[in-house]
Amino acid sequence: MASEKKLVEAITSMEEDFAQWYTDVVKKAELCDYASVKGCMVIKPAGYALWENIQKELDRRFKETGVENVYMPLFIPEGLLQKEKDHVEGFAPEVAWVTHGGMEELQERMCVRPTSETLFCDFYARDIHSYRDLPKVYNQWCSVVRWEKTTRPFLRSREFLWQEGHTAHATAQEAQERTEQMLNVYADFCEEVLAIPVIRGQKTDKEKFAGAEATYTIEALMHDGKALQSGTSHNFGDGFAKAFEIQYAAKDNSLQYVHQTSWGMSTRIIGAIIMVHGDDSGLVLPPMIAPVQVVIVPIQQKKEGVLDKAFEIKEALSGFRVKVDDSDKSPGWKFSESEMRGIPVRVEIGPKDMAQNQAVLVRRDTREKQIVPLDRIQEKIGELLVQIQREMLERAREHRDAHTYTAEDFDVFKRTVEEKPGFVKAMWCGCRECEDKIKELTGATSRCMPFVQEKLADTCVCCGKPAVKMVYWGRAY
Amino acid sequence: MASEKKLVEAITSMEEDFAQWYTDVVKKAELCDYASVKGCMVIKPAGYALWENIQKELDRRFKETGVENVYMPLFIPEGLLQKEKDHVEGFAPEVAWVTHGGMEELQERMCVRPTSETLFCDFYARDIHSYRDLPKVYNQWCSVVRWEKTTRPFLRSREFLWQEGHTAHATAQEAQERTEQMLNVYADFCEEVLAIPVIRGQKTDKEKFAGAEATYTIEALMHDGKALQSGTSHNFGDGFAKAFEIQYAAKDNSLQYVHQTSWGMSTRIIGAIIMVHGDDSGLVLPPMIAPVQVVIVPIQQKKEGVLDKAFEIKEALSGFRVKVDDSDKSPGWKFSESEMRGIPVRVEIGPKDMAQNQAVLVRRDTREKQIVPLDRIQEKIGELLVQIQREMLERAREHRDAHTYTAEDFDVFKRTVEEKPGFVKAMWCGCRECEDKIKELTGATSRCMPFVQEKLADTCVCCGKPAVKMVYWGRAY
Repeated sequence: MASEKKLVEAITSMEEDFAQWYTDVVKKAELCDYASVKGCMVIKPAGYALWENIQKELDRRFKETGVENVYMPLFIPEGLLQKEKDHVEGFAPEVAWVTHGGMEELQERMCVRPTSETLFCDFYARDIHSYRDLPKVYNQWCSVVRWEKTTRPFLRSREFLWQEGHTAHATAQEAQERTEQMLNVYADFCEEVLAIPVIRGQKTDKEKFAGAEATYTIEALMHDGKALQSGTSHNFGDGFAKAFEIQYAAKDNSLQYVHQTSWGMSTRIIGAIIMVHGDDSGLVLPPMIAPVQVVIVPIQQKKEGVLDKAFEIKEALSGFRVKVDDSDKSPGWKFSESEMRGIPVRVEIGPKDMAQNQAVLVRRDTREKQIVPLDRIQEKIGELLVQIQREMLERAREHRDAHTYTAEDFDVFKRTVEEKPGFVKAMWCGCRECEDKIKELTGATSRCMPFVQEKLADTCVCCGKPAVKMVYWGRAY
Repeated sequence: MASEKKLVEAITSMEEDFAQWYTDVVKKAELCDYASVKGCMVIKPAGYALWENIQKELDRRFKETGVENVYMPLFIPEGLLQKEKDHVEGFAPEVAWVTHGGMEELQERMCVRPTSETLFCDFYARDIHSYRDLPKVYNQWCSVVRWEKTTRPFLRSREFLWQEGHTAHATAQEAQERTEQMLNVYADFCEEVLAIPVIRGQKTDKEKFAGAEATYTIEALMHDGKALQSGTSHNFGDGFAKAFEIQYAAKDNSLQYVHQTSWGMSTRIIGAIIMVHGDDSGLVLPPMIAPVQVVIVPIQQKKEGVLDKAFEIKEALSGFRVKVDDSDKSPGWKFSESEMRGIPVRVEIGPKDMAQNQAVLVRRDTREKQIVPLDRIQEKIGELLVQIQREMLERAREHRDAHTYTAEDFDVFKRTVEEKPGFVKAMWCGCRECEDKIKELTGATSRCMPFVQEKLADTCVCCGKPAVKMVYWGRAY
């Protein structure tokens, strides 16, 4: 039992040190590892399998809305990056520069893409001629590089995986509709698949994307009460189109600028899965995204027939992602390990169970046990996975709601941010000065102006002038 | 009809200029486009959809053999690249170097991965401790960069997409078995899915991978008689393990070096699909890999009921990838366009067909037409797709065999290479000097020493000394 204890003891408890708990889980659940390049990560099989499931499900939802996948180059020539003023200011300080190809110095240095607006615009300028070429609804799955100073696995790394959608439309209205449509794809995906409830809303001008007219976001609340921006969708208007001269001949033969959007979700969302659902025994994965949904642990597996029965059950569980742990570890160790990895359901089967033609099912999230007859196990596990998925979302929503506060004056606001980690809803006058002051004095940033507005008061929580928007505030990752 | 002609005329004929034909098809079938970064490409939806289908099918076959996907960093610190002597010599001349991160110069410059042996080895050295940790059978899908001087879309570009598998095993035998197993996965994939027949064999020492003990290859013959290396699998022995100190404690507690393999297939294979199957009207895609398998072209689509019937047929063709071309172009233009894009089967449906409750099916590969009753169209198309797939492989094999020659003396060899584009089978003494001389005097390189050996003569085709192997020679991409 000593070695079994070791596995669990290896995790710092959440209460004691949430940041260390996070690092421990990432490491012990074997999601990723540090690499020789500072700030980059090696995504291990358990972590990459999560990303593959995220990709598969998101990609399917994208394609249902007419998205086509493409691939743009990894490099952006410096001159191209500089074409849109706000954009280059936002990204130039944190890009990696390639200066030599083979033995020769390049005539123009290139950065490794931090995001690919400029590449898509350069391509669209050549590829779009007429209204018949519109809309373009392209996406790519790739990695991007941002030379961050401080990094954390999944949450902030110098290289990360993501998808970036880039669209071009004939009208401003169509671009706005696509921007909102993709935000809703992300939000629905988070809630339905990852069991992570999100607030949908618009970023303030201060927090919007470099070069965007408007940025929309989904914001999730982590277990420690800090917010995580989980996906964004930007409406560029015709700003990039003017900088890159992307024009089309309309039906009346007039030349018009296109209207553009972009939207992205990254491996950062794996950080959200960990921090929304995890507990002191490790990961807790929602069934829909779990690479392994059911682990079968044979008890006294050397006794005749036990392993056969375990594999027989696996065969019966067709349609689910099932693994039999037939390694030579002890059952207790296997329990801890499957808990660490967040496998939603554990099936225990041993000689005693076999004698009674039953098995024990254990939920990862609540640890609840139930005994089921073997001839109904497929049906029972199907029901259980649906129930776990639903209840994980409910619990995350209850946690979020229980950690969402309102503040009508600055003192309450400040005390709430300091003492009660979570979202604070408060009214705002719309000016940058108040946003800066709130951040300086409390550490909270504006997370979003939610689509669903409430009128909590008439005046700004900071300056007392007339309020224009209710904003979600919070400390964030 | 003028505009319809234009589409076809845009392609140079194969006979006239094969290289130009290739470039025209790539462009007109909208597979890829040039990018602002010299030598890099924009892979457009029609090209990327091909790659997605290749990925899906290969990845499934990999996973059936126990492969797990991971993701390693994009960058390799210079010191890490230099750890294995042969490897760095092979790749250093053609890598892109990152020297600055943000505003600061890096202490150690990094290259953008040209291949990831060094990263996997660095990781394995930290991650492998005991025989229980073996085997490691990891793969990643990513892009790599090689700063080539001359480039061609898909065939040779400065950045390309690929997968690279990297495995570590306890014994030399297991590594050898995995090396051959993966070569066979590639070969079967090419033949069964891409309808491209391949020669399976081993590379000579001259042609093997930098750092490998043995390199295995599949070689395909293009329509112009030039060879294309279509996938490789390398056995590294314990060379990298010694350079990177990757050791494990065996069951008897002795410290042992692991034995490693790597294997890869890239977007280059799209070039093979084009050059094996294409014709003067454009692409010809094997049904199993075609993003669209069936295009339905409505004739007189403005007549009542025609479009409805076209979509009704689409509904009936469940299980196939079907598109209705309801654009406002003429039927003739649509025919040309679907031929350019290589769609395997075209369905024509108009008022006359509707009156007789039938439709016209046209094969892309042979242009053969048949009339089928609408109530049997699903079954007929299913049969037709299977038949096309099979016959495309047969035709490619016949072409390959008809362009495979033997040569017993050097004069015949030289004349054959010069006058009859194709493979030349000839005996070889095993020495580098003859290989160099053959390349210098004929332009042909050794493609592989096939697993299936024939004894054509007793002596080397070049030097007349005793022969040890029969080799496939040819000019190659």
